[in-house]
Amino acid sequence: MNNNAITPRDVDFAKWYTDVVRAAKLADYTSVKGCIAIEPNGYAIWENIQKIMDQKFKEMGHVNVQMPLLIPESLFNQEKELIEGFAPELLWATAAGEKKLEERHAIRSTSETLFCDYYKKHITSYKDLPKLYNQWCNVFRYEKETRPFLRSREFLWQEGHTIHATAEEAQWETKRMMDVYVWFNKEILAIPSITGKKTEKEKFAGAEYTLTNEDLMYNGVCLQDGTSHYFGQKFSKAYDVKFTNKDNQDEYAYYTTWGKTTRAIAAIIMVHADDKGLVLPPRIAPKQVAIIPIGNGNEEVINLANELNNKLNQSGITSYIDNSDKSPGFKFAEAEVNGIPIRIEIGPRDLANSEITFARRDTSEKYQVNINDDLVTYTKDLLDTIQDDMLIKATKRRDELTFTAHNLDDFERILNTQPGFIHADWCGDEACENRVKEIKGCKSRLISDEPLIDGKCAICGKEAKHHVIWGLQY
Amino acid sequence: MNNNAITPRDVDFAKWYTDVVRAAKLADYTSVKGCIAIEPNGYAIWENIQKIMDQKFKEMGHVNVQMPLLIPESLFNQEKELIEGFAPELLWATAAGEKKLEERHAIRSTSETLFCDYYKKHITSYKDLPKLYNQWCNVFRYEKETRPFLRSREFLWQEGHTIHATAEEAQWETKRMMDVYVWFNKEILAIPSITGKKTEKEKFAGAEYTLTNEDLMYNGVCLQDGTSHYFGQKFSKAYDVKFTNKDNQDEYAYYTTWGKTTRAIAAIIMVHADDKGLVLPPRIAPKQVAIIPIGNGNEEVINLANELNNKLNQSGITSYIDNSDKSPGFKFAEAEVNGIPIRIEIGPRDLANSEITFARRDTSEKYQVNINDDLVTYTKDLLDTIQDDMLIKATKRRDELTFTAHNLDDFERILNTQPGFIHADWCGDEACENRVKEIKGCKSRLISDEPLIDGKCAICGKEAKHHVIWGLQY
Repeated sequence: MNNNAITPRDVDFAKWYTDVVRAAKLADYTSVKGCIAIEPNGYAIWENIQKIMDQKFKEMGHVNVQMPLLIPESLFNQEKELIEGFAPELLWATAAGEKKLEERHAIRSTSETLFCDYYKKHITSYKDLPKLYNQWCNVFRYEKETRPFLRSREFLWQEGHTIHATAEEAQWETKRMMDVYVWFNKEILAIPSITGKKTEKEKFAGAEYTLTNEDLMYNGVCLQDGTSHYFGQKFSKAYDVKFTNKDNQDEYAYYTTWGKTTRAIAAIIMVHADDKGLVLPPRIAPKQVAIIPIGNGNEEVINLANELNNKLNQSGITSYIDNSDKSPGFKFAEAEVNGIPIRIEIGPRDLANSEITFARRDTSEKYQVNINDDLVTYTKDLLDTIQDDMLIKATKRRDELTFTAHNLDDFERILNTQPGFIHADWCGDEACENRVKEIKGCKSRLISDEPLIDGKCAICGKEAKHHVIWGLQY
Repeated sequence: MNNNAITPRDVDFAKWYTDVVRAAKLADYTSVKGCIAIEPNGYAIWENIQKIMDQKFKEMGHVNVQMPLLIPESLFNQEKELIEGFAPELLWATAAGEKKLEERHAIRSTSETLFCDYYKKHITSYKDLPKLYNQWCNVFRYEKETRPFLRSREFLWQEGHTIHATAEEAQWETKRMMDVYVWFNKEILAIPSITGKKTEKEKFAGAEYTLTNEDLMYNGVCLQDGTSHYFGQKFSKAYDVKFTNKDNQDEYAYYTTWGKTTRAIAAIIMVHADDKGLVLPPRIAPKQVAIIPIGNGNEEVINLANELNNKLNQSGITSYIDNSDKSPGFKFAEAEVNGIPIRIEIGPRDLANSEITFARRDTSEKYQVNINDDLVTYTKDLLDTIQDDMLIKATKRRDELTFTAHNLDDFERILNTQPGFIHADWCGDEACENRVKEIKGCKSRLISDEPLIDGKCAICGKEAKHHVIWGLQY
């Protein structure tokens, strides 16, 4: 498995990351600069993310739509803050066949303009509201430095765009969708995110405020992994999205957007993977169990493997038998590098004792289990245990890398030894944010609900307004 | 429902079509020329198409991937026939931010180039084959005249790209995927497609041959709705996709692609819809049953509606209660225009006789059913009956509009009175195809497996090689 050699995580985290992406066959580079091919193993994870989130969205009353990929420049220009925020990253289509287009069109980098343009035409009364629309699609941002899943010029995402008759309802939507992201990361991805409002400096271009979901990677760098924006009436004024309210008066509608991307796959890797490759939380793993028969076609082994595989699949566990002609050792390593949560080894020697072996990917622990036990229940319970333990482990790591800074020296010391989530009070002045940024680019991640620490700004010493969590970012 | 007025189908078929699209809220025009917004009702149909086809693909061993949206011009140019075929329709991205790109990039119109470029890197031995990849994505073709779903500059599709060690296996794949499309149209969409090979003139640019799935619309115009291409080694030579075969020799791989698009939604409309709006075959309908309570909040009515709705949903039937404050007549019309297969009316007067009313969308028939009957089974059976009857009706219409031409006069007469599928013998000469095309643009649809009719070409009178089916096309 020379091709799959993985640089140790503690030696070179960045190299380790891309090595895991390649070794687990999640994605590969392409001839298109800055764009990846998402391979079957990677896309299957995205399909599971889509399935689970989409079901949740629908239970909450959302419906899916599809808006165009292209945005005419004139339409984009109607909302200045948005175009200014995205201008350097926009890719422009300018010609069709050999003819120049009359107007150039941006390739979708986000779809606020198109949704607002649609809502403008389709909303007349408060009775038409709310509209809870979402779309799953590709978006393009011309990034200079790219890394698979983490920052790619093209990526996949869902973008929710909802429009409401009252500010209160829209803000409730903004909040509940952030709650979905936090729930998803915790319960499905075993990632203990933190959440709160972005500062004015860090919020989304044009939003009144942005709620963010922040994960802490194994190396102590933060990852923004899901945002939910409240726009108030700003976009509806720019795009003339009006409705007649209950008092029979014209009113601009209240707008929210929220999105989560294929970046979640980067988070799974950088929180859970190890030097042997990917480690997938059972609830997101496309294949939860690898059954590996040992002993060159031994009939008893094959029969038990087939029987167990069928039983597991029938009970809703995704398992498969590796029947390829590779050696058992190779198969073990392959299941390992691909992050399959449980490996079941069935061999003639163990079978003589009526036993088979369960190996956990997350801890490498092995258990001998009697074949007359209820193996389906045993597997289900072990999957749940792995899921729980992965969250506990990630939470422990996060907590170990969570620090408090009372002054700039603390910031310097923490960021120069071991970065992480840094709690510090802040006066609310952007100048202080800029001062912190001078230390390795450290930024405010979010404004926490927690009480103030010292009551004074850790940067300038003036009276503090907010308890803020800071950190380095991807 | 003035906004939803539908032009009668027999008065103006084209206008009727777009009226149905709008009245059933499937899609709307946007500020992006030639591009539509697929609205919730339309996208839900596409989601069902995806779900059913994707499951079938996976059962057959296919896996999903995602290739980039952009194709560098130099890569596209490696296969001349493909670029020549698509050149006039290609949209080009030429600038990022305010900077010109070093090389212009085509927006994906089809992904042969990217898949071949990927396979080139990832295939070394016959042991790596076959690779059965598919992707669900958006594509862009700069069409001059567009109509929702039927011909849109951007559309959604799946594109399968498979690569094999032998020509035999690749041709088997080409065939079995066409069989899937035919199966899907017949069993799920209730559309009796016909299938066969395209002529050399009509095949896909660069393919050795193309299998096609052709539907006949209500007005007798043909719709190509799914194609499967066998490329032999042509693309693998152009893109250097080689592998070491069992004899330890280098060999170019054998390649197939196959695709089906959101155009299927146009086919559903133009085969099944009527002057009252959409008519959805039950197996593709996102909502199969509309329950409409009558009698202003009568408790018995509401209780039965809720109970029945729960029972239906629990048994896998997608039903909903229309609890809005509109009048029953308005609700009936809305369920009708949206093509919901079954409408259940529950009113106090009928309930006094222990009865409720089932109304079929396809035939407008109504049945009084005793509430003590097994209503779930009754509903399931009725959905099956509707599905079967819709296929029978569409097949009858197709057969009525299927003609035979023995000579050019026959072609003229048929195409000037009532077009349809026209069976006629053909010598194999492209000049004869061109001659037929002079009559209203009539083209060969496919080469049929059926025996020759007269044994001589209906156009030139020379010896016939093929029994061909001809027709006007969308």
